[in-house]
Amino acid sequence: MTQGRFITFEGGEGTGKSTQVARLVDRLRARDLEVLQTREPGGSDGAEEIRNLALNGDAGRWSPMTETLLMFAARSDHLERTIRPALAVGRWVVCDRFADSSRAYQGAGGGVAAAFIEMLDAAVVDATQPDLTLVFDLPVEVGLERAFGRGLFETRFESKGLAFHERLRQGFREIAAAHPERCVIIDADGDPETVAARVWAAVAERLL
Amino acid sequence: MTQGRFITFEGGEGTGKSTQVARLVDRLRARDLEVLQTREPGGSDGAEEIRNLALNGDAGRWSPMTETLLMFAARSDHLERTIRPALAVGRWVVCDRFADSSRAYQGAGGGVAAAFIEMLDAAVVDATQPDLTLVFDLPVEVGLERAFGRGLFETRFESKGLAFHERLRQGFREIAAAHPERCVIIDADGDPETVAARVWAAVAERLL
Repeated sequence: MTQGRFITFEGGEGTGKSTQVARLVDRLRARDLEVLQTREPGGSDGAEEIRNLALNGDAGRWSPMTETLLMFAARSDHLERTIRPALAVGRWVVCDRFADSSRAYQGAGGGVAAAFIEMLDAAVVDATQPDLTLVFDLPVEVGLERAFGRGLFETRFESKGLAFHERLRQGFREIAAAHPERCVIIDADGDPETVAARVWAAVAERLL
Repeated sequence: MTQGRFITFEGGEGTGKSTQVARLVDRLRARDLEVLQTREPGGSDGAEEIRNLALNGDAGRWSPMTETLLMFAARSDHLERTIRPALAVGRWVVCDRFADSSRAYQGAGGGVAAAFIEMLDAAVVDATQPDLTLVFDLPVEVGLERAFGRGLFETRFESKGLAFHERLRQGFREIAAAHPERCVIIDADGDPETVAARVWAAVAERLL
């Protein structure tokens, strides 16, 4: 049995990641691949409890430093209990957000030192780096309008200011530029069919 | 207004730390010092919520790595919201457990790399190192019998095996040996009056 492949979806608020995660999982399963669909923060019992602590409450409830440590605590549990066991038995893992969200939200957005986040990544994620990361890119106003259109801001992050979300978008673009071997920027502007075709093209080219 | 002093109490289970923290706080207040009594994990609203996640449940609920990250997340919040603001206005802070408990429990006891814990300490605790750390030392059997005498094992840690607690004691002794400038080993065997006199002698010699 070969090791499974690990695909992560990244990007700001309202970029349509979650919809596209579900579509990609369906398409991979239609090719008879065993696929685990998961998300961060969360994806294991313990990590989901940490998620509840980390995402709820006021925007200023946790400092970016504390938030970084909570996110990597959740990631550690998620890797140990969910992701690594699935990859080890040959399943593909498709994850909605992963370590690049810490780089972008707490690093580029929140001002936590990049070197500190890389050190956490080296210790916690270690060799379980994604085989492919799809970075969903969309003008900030479009993404926030979509998120707002869902009714209410769902998390503490969506209620942060526009300047925060601009730093976030720039942060994700810089991550993709720095890691071309695993990252592909996906233009998230367009109807779901169009975006799904872009996602599939990237997956097919890199992994199939 | 001068910066307050920061005193931490460390040691294994059943060493009598909590009783002695309260006695020292009373004695410092009797000298008209403003003293904040606090504890870890916890000591701020957010950190107390992380404490509930970290300490409850099965002994194997979290891996030592995840536990380390949760403890430093709680410590980050505690430092930002409670400890640093108190020290800045000249209050003394007396804390039941601090970063040495991560070194001993997750490091020496749980096998997390010492270099990783030191890196977290450098980023999170930074310049807010204790002025004095009292390391309560007691044979493991005596401490666990005292803890058991409280009725039930109160936390996940007390229910770990004897070998774990031996590594813990050894870990605390090595920390004290490595940091003689801030650490004093307190022989915790004896009645509370005797131990309180040892504590006071150390505080008076180092800080008064």
